[in-house]
Amino acid sequence: MLDQTSRDQVHRETVFRREATAIATCDALEIETKAAPGFLDITDEVQAVVAESGVTFGQVTIFSSHTTAAIRINEAEPLLLRDMARTLRQLAPSNAYYEHNDFGRRTVNMNDDECANGHAHCQHLFLASSETVPVIDGRCALGLYQRVFLIELDHPRMRRILVNVVGC
Amino acid sequence: MLDQTSRDQVHRETVFRREATAIATCDALEIETKAAPGFLDITDEVQAVVAESGVTFGQVTIFSSHTTAAIRINEAEPLLLRDMARTLRQLAPSNAYYEHNDFGRRTVNMNDDECANGHAHCQHLFLASSETVPVIDGRCALGLYQRVFLIELDHPRMRRILVNVVGC
Amino acid sequence: MLDQTSRDQVHRETVFRREATAIATCDALEIETKAAPGFLDITDEVQAVVAESGVTFGQVTIFSSHTTAAIRINEAEPLLLRDMARTLRQLAPSNAYYEHNDFGRRTVNMNDDECANGHAHCQHLFLASSETVPVIDGRCALGLYQRVFLIELDHPRMRRILVNVVGC
Repeated sequence: MLDQTSRDQVHRETVFRREATAIATCDALEIETKAAPGFLDITDEVQAVVAESGVTFGQVTIFSSHTTAAIRINEAEPLLLRDMARTLRQLAPSNAYYEHNDFGRRTVNMNDDECANGHAHCQHLFLASSETVPVIDGRCALGLYQRVFLIELDHPRMRRILVNVVGC
Repeated sequence: MLDQTSRDQVHRETVFRREATAIATCDALEIETKAAPGFLDITDEVQAVVAESGVTFGQVTIFSSHTTAAIRINEAEPLLLRDMARTLRQLAPSNAYYEHNDFGRRTVNMNDDECANGHAHCQHLFLASSETVPVIDGRCALGLYQRVFLIELDHPRMRRILVNVVGC
Repeated sequence: MLDQTSRDQVHRETVFRREATAIATCDALEIETKAAPGFLDITDEVQAVVAESGVTFGQVTIFSSHTTAAIRINEAEPLLLRDMARTLRQLAPSNAYYEHNDFGRRTVNMNDDECANGHAHCQHLFLASSETVPVIDGRCALGLYQRVFLIELDHPRMRRILVNVVGC
């Protein structure tokens, strides 16, 4: 199973190299989610931000400002998204017991409209807050089937995503 | 479940754009963990590094130098941290069988004080080694409930975390 | 379990700080995988790209262009890799039901040689597409046991990995 790479197994080519004044830009996307769990394809928005950033080469980080909404890259095939949602539910079902949902005991970060979302936090733990993608020739260099998703894990609402481009 | 974004669903605003000489800095945090599994909130240390880096805009990567200690962003609610620890244990229990712990068979990376930590590596696989966060106006741009955690998965010890800031 | 860091628990040291013209480079590795699930150690290739990039300080992102092949950092101990593969299979077994594999219903992204790989996508969801590592003194600053793996989750084939270095 462990397979040390050998020289005849890897072909390497330089895609770009650039030295110039650094550019850093950040755009915020305010997005209304409509389902949970829900996979929202935000690839076109990310590409637009990268194209207008003025960065030719570098990288873009798509960052969720939330602890119950994640960013992941995967394939935009509708049946697959249902499979992935089911896998998330199996890992941390919404109807399991979470101490975080025990409002009789909990004292930290309690709001008037607090809802039971322990499952959403536990699912988020395995998905993470961001993805980072190379920028090549002013474009987010995604592979053929790669799409960037905002994954809503809690109830639908407004979400804030930062699209941060660094390069030159 | 698949929801292609529509123009009326997304509001976009530019947060910053800066062109200047590149700055790259790195600080190392040597941190003593005290529990396992344990969630250590290192947000204030990360913010201090970013503030003193001289980077106004760009991004910060918080990177664990270890294969059994992870970096994740989530909410610092004490009961929730217990839920997340339980979810990790369910995914890869410490008392399950791991070939990595079979010291009669294993020959690679064996030390005198080797301990059975197959579960910690398998949990780490799903948590990853780093998080990357945008830097805006010299601050790590975390959302309201986002805190950066060093997650100790193996036994408590000294851990080395790199806080790497790149921008301008 | 929650452990707020205290001042006497953390030692901090500055590793580097550099201001200079930005450099961004990207190399593509075309790699033939030979097993699935398979862990291919590509650390030496990544180190070679970083060494030749001309970047002294900054960071490197190792990015998989695929939705069924992931990048993760962990220990290169052969028995452990078998444990991690087993944990992945338990999370999303290849012989479970996936709607993505239901070619009678599916209409999106169908190719002539389409194979049943719903498990591979669901495993990928928890592993992610990239890792980002600090670059210090022209080297990828990995810890003692950290190795960078390309993880093949679907059937063996040619895979394209981008190694993207940004810094100065």
